[in-house]
Amino acid sequence: MRLDELNAANKADFVTALGAIYEHSPWVAEAVANKRPFAALAALNDAMRAVVIAADASRVLALLNAHPDLAGKAARAGAMTADSKAEQGSAGLARLSEREFEEFHRLNESYHKKFGFPFIICVRRHGKESIFRQFERRLGNTIAAERDAALLEIFRIAALRLDQHVSAPDKLAVHGRLTTHALDTHAGIPAADVVVELCELSGAENVLITAGVTDASGRTDEPLIGGRPLPIARYELRFMIGDYFARRGVVRADPPFLDVVPIRFAIAEPEGHYHVPLTVTPWSYATYRGS
Amino acid sequence: MRLDELNAANKADFVTALGAIYEHSPWVAEAVANKRPFAALAALNDAMRAVVIAADASRVLALLNAHPDLAGKAARAGAMTADSKAEQGSAGLARLSEREFEEFHRLNESYHKKFGFPFIICVRRHGKESIFRQFERRLGNTIAAERDAALLEIFRIAALRLDQHVSAPDKLAVHGRLTTHALDTHAGIPAADVVVELCELSGAENVLITAGVTDASGRTDEPLIGGRPLPIARYELRFMIGDYFARRGVVRADPPFLDVVPIRFAIAEPEGHYHVPLTVTPWSYATYRGS
Amino acid sequence: MRLDELNAANKADFVTALGAIYEHSPWVAEAVANKRPFAALAALNDAMRAVVIAADASRVLALLNAHPDLAGKAARAGAMTADSKAEQGSAGLARLSEREFEEFHRLNESYHKKFGFPFIICVRRHGKESIFRQFERRLGNTIAAERDAALLEIFRIAALRLDQHVSAPDKLAVHGRLTTHALDTHAGIPAADVVVELCELSGAENVLITAGVTDASGRTDEPLIGGRPLPIARYELRFMIGDYFARRGVVRADPPFLDVVPIRFAIAEPEGHYHVPLTVTPWSYATYRGS
Amino acid sequence: MRLDELNAANKADFVTALGAIYEHSPWVAEAVANKRPFAALAALNDAMRAVVIAADASRVLALLNAHPDLAGKAARAGAMTADSKAEQGSAGLARLSEREFEEFHRLNESYHKKFGFPFIICVRRHGKESIFRQFERRLGNTIAAERDAALLEIFRIAALRLDQHVSAPDKLAVHGRLTTHALDTHAGIPAADVVVELCELSGAENVLITAGVTDASGRTDEPLIGGRPLPIARYELRFMIGDYFARRGVVRADPPFLDVVPIRFAIAEPEGHYHVPLTVTPWSYATYRGS
Repeated sequence: MRLDELNAANKADFVTALGAIYEHSPWVAEAVANKRPFAALAALNDAMRAVVIAADASRVLALLNAHPDLAGKAARAGAMTADSKAEQGSAGLARLSEREFEEFHRLNESYHKKFGFPFIICVRRHGKESIFRQFERRLGNTIAAERDAALLEIFRIAALRLDQHVSAPDKLAVHGRLTTHALDTHAGIPAADVVVELCELSGAENVLITAGVTDASGRTDEPLIGGRPLPIARYELRFMIGDYFARRGVVRADPPFLDVVPIRFAIAEPEGHYHVPLTVTPWSYATYRGS
Repeated sequence: MRLDELNAANKADFVTALGAIYEHSPWVAEAVANKRPFAALAALNDAMRAVVIAADASRVLALLNAHPDLAGKAARAGAMTADSKAEQGSAGLARLSEREFEEFHRLNESYHKKFGFPFIICVRRHGKESIFRQFERRLGNTIAAERDAALLEIFRIAALRLDQHVSAPDKLAVHGRLTTHALDTHAGIPAADVVVELCELSGAENVLITAGVTDASGRTDEPLIGGRPLPIARYELRFMIGDYFARRGVVRADPPFLDVVPIRFAIAEPEGHYHVPLTVTPWSYATYRGS
Repeated sequence: MRLDELNAANKADFVTALGAIYEHSPWVAEAVANKRPFAALAALNDAMRAVVIAADASRVLALLNAHPDLAGKAARAGAMTADSKAEQGSAGLARLSEREFEEFHRLNESYHKKFGFPFIICVRRHGKESIFRQFERRLGNTIAAERDAALLEIFRIAALRLDQHVSAPDKLAVHGRLTTHALDTHAGIPAADVVVELCELSGAENVLITAGVTDASGRTDEPLIGGRPLPIARYELRFMIGDYFARRGVVRADPPFLDVVPIRFAIAEPEGHYHVPLTVTPWSYATYRGS
Repeated sequence: MRLDELNAANKADFVTALGAIYEHSPWVAEAVANKRPFAALAALNDAMRAVVIAADASRVLALLNAHPDLAGKAARAGAMTADSKAEQGSAGLARLSEREFEEFHRLNESYHKKFGFPFIICVRRHGKESIFRQFERRLGNTIAAERDAALLEIFRIAALRLDQHVSAPDKLAVHGRLTTHALDTHAGIPAADVVVELCELSGAENVLITAGVTDASGRTDEPLIGGRPLPIARYELRFMIGDYFARRGVVRADPPFLDVVPIRFAIAEPEGHYHVPLTVTPWSYATYRGS
């Protein structure tokens, strides 16, 4: 839906459209309906956040409790809002092993018992390992600190949902970007037509996230990840450099000294720009966090 | 047994001692017993090889046929000479999957049918993948070329067996060496106390070959592989660099950009020196085939 | 002057405006005046070149002879067209040593004697050393080959002059670009505020071409050379990296291991893009021809 | 002279032999003559140093004053002990410009006026720039601190003189070492037959210290500097890499992108090991402080 349509809609339609931005909490949308028109998405987002911040403690607690458990029974049963389902799926929480599912169950129970509300995290900003790590860490918080931490995550979730559901001249999110560049320092040219794969590493698991091929400038047409937060996670980039040098006809060993070049790294800033280039010959390579 | 003892032994003892250098073929040792004394192991080796080269075709064929199938029924049943058993085990042929075992069976049959003798290869110079590759390639040879190829392998096997069983002032084998070196280019010093693991990659399998820790000079005390031929294979070296920089107290991201640094490379020259160093900061690294 | 103005001008004004595009040869402009209007600068350039190519041998010889000697008496006396003066000055031919002046004199004499016209080269595409090298090489040409070589240079000169004197929607020249990028792989960030100097090396001489400071992205605001052909020459880039790490407060040796980092390289393609980055810590650095 | 000969000599000969270890101060040798025999050079050195440390203030002042000015009138006139003359010469103090000579004169005067004795420094551990820097810094010391600093330098001088004049089973000095290594990462082999030059940079001056050629392992036969302290100074290593790749027949640009590769660095630890390798292709290179 477009922002100008939301500005023009009657109140009921407005609330229907934005009632799920804050999980099961249409009162947030209701409270800002009369503040229309909003010149930009940022103004709408600020207004909704202000409503939550000004709400009394019991309402905030109800908002917190409106969220489903992470990888909980509702997730298994598919009984979540469409947004929550998509979000939890993006972090791989829909395909947990039995051991992981039990680990989440154990953490959810401990967390509920200590804080009285479910663990909330903007899962689009995390890989599975990072969610576990955050879960463990936040279990150590005081109740007041954890309430603030949960709200911060709710605001992050709301902003991403607004961006996704409302088309407006402005965008809320400062998205991260993961890019690469393959340079053939044997010939002093960009390495073109190199197949590049990106996997997320999770425990001993490797999940292929995307694959691409470098163009004449040695880059992939699109960022490896872009237009969304970069999930905090461990990754492995793989460059099929053996095939590249074979096509170039460079005389090499048999088997070639370098074939698949893996680069393992972690992303810690979901809104950062990670440029991870490769300079490579058949006998050497280098990489670094670039910009 | 020492070379001088072999020189002094009676003929029967000499033949008993060296009867298995050429598989089930004591006639090779017999033929050189009267040429004693041998001043060096190289002279003994040359003499035995000359006997084989001068032998008539039927004797050579018998020698070829005295060898067990690679990963064949004899291997499964444990019914091989001690040397063959140890050799086939070193290349991981003792722990094949059912699929690999059948693949060897199929190759053995095709090979026997075409050449009339079993496939012979100096397995200590190869990893499992390389053995399969050699097998496929040599199946394409002419019979004459393959007979020569098999003899070359038999001479390689014999030289390694002599080195292993006879202690002498000289050694026959020019052994390969795989070494590494970790340099911390963040601090301009060798990276000490870095855990390094070496795996052989075989299909999707990772077999840990050895692990070590770098010393104050950034090197491991011993070569990662040394004192034997380097098996032709794909490898992955892993440097636990995240732990290293954590111990040094360098401020890093969470999770750290670099944690385990993997270097995948292949060895193609069993008698070569492969030096695979790592120069590393928390944000960059480089490697190359050094010397 | 604008292309549309040239299209609308009377013939005399048109010829006056473009009479010097081909040195002292207004007949080239005259011959295309009636072909107006030209939709683009490229069409005008093609038309003028076609006139030269179609001209008879004596006219072409006259055109060749209309050019001044390189660093000749006319240059010394300042008796050249404004274009020639600016062009020869750009390659440092206005500040020759006595020895170099005599060397040019000697080459000019040999060349005249062999070919019957002066040595012509598009000096904006060359540094001083490269001009000498071209001079020596082309002295070995046959007369026919050299006549073609001279015409090619004249067409290059004409295109650059047209670009400079006529403003039009299109540009003729595919200009080269020299850029750099400084990355601090000690901290995993771009190296900002690094002073960078570019010198042209000529014999034992160092001529400062430009200097700049890297911005927050580790790049200079402008290409080090851009908007013109890159003179074929040897260069030295200098990065004041000692000052940079001192400002960052990195503990270093006294004096620091690295202070001024010089990168010496040559440009061979005047229309190419040369990207010469530096990845650097206080103890290491790397560079490569990038893109 | 050999240590055992010194142990056996009569006292007068012993004092004659070692009277100049401490500048114009044979009383130091005299005081240890009766403590003979010395089992090792280290024991002799310790004993002589202990004599100086135990001496009363006036004797120490006399010892300090027995030293010549650095680059002073005595140096100009050649009126110094043989040791001092060789030492000052090694740091290039024998070939000062008029401006540098005056600068030393000015510093010597200021120093004498403040401390009442000449500036003493173990010049074998410094280049010219470093001597100037030390001079300026030590002028800021208190008299007590400076007396200690001067004695430390005298002990360093004495140890180097003992090593030079007395042959013994042990050596006193832990000498520094500057080594290099050229690796061709285009071919994955050591870069052999590469000419390497080492210059000391002093102001705008370049003084060639040594030159060598890499062997089959990519190293120079001898350390670039070894068997002596490494003078604290700025250096430039130059690798003639263009010639190397031309000989290898690698297709390159004209002129080649890389020809002479200069690496500028400083040595700060005279007793350290500096390994400054180069990994290089025709289009890229890297260096680092190795070990």
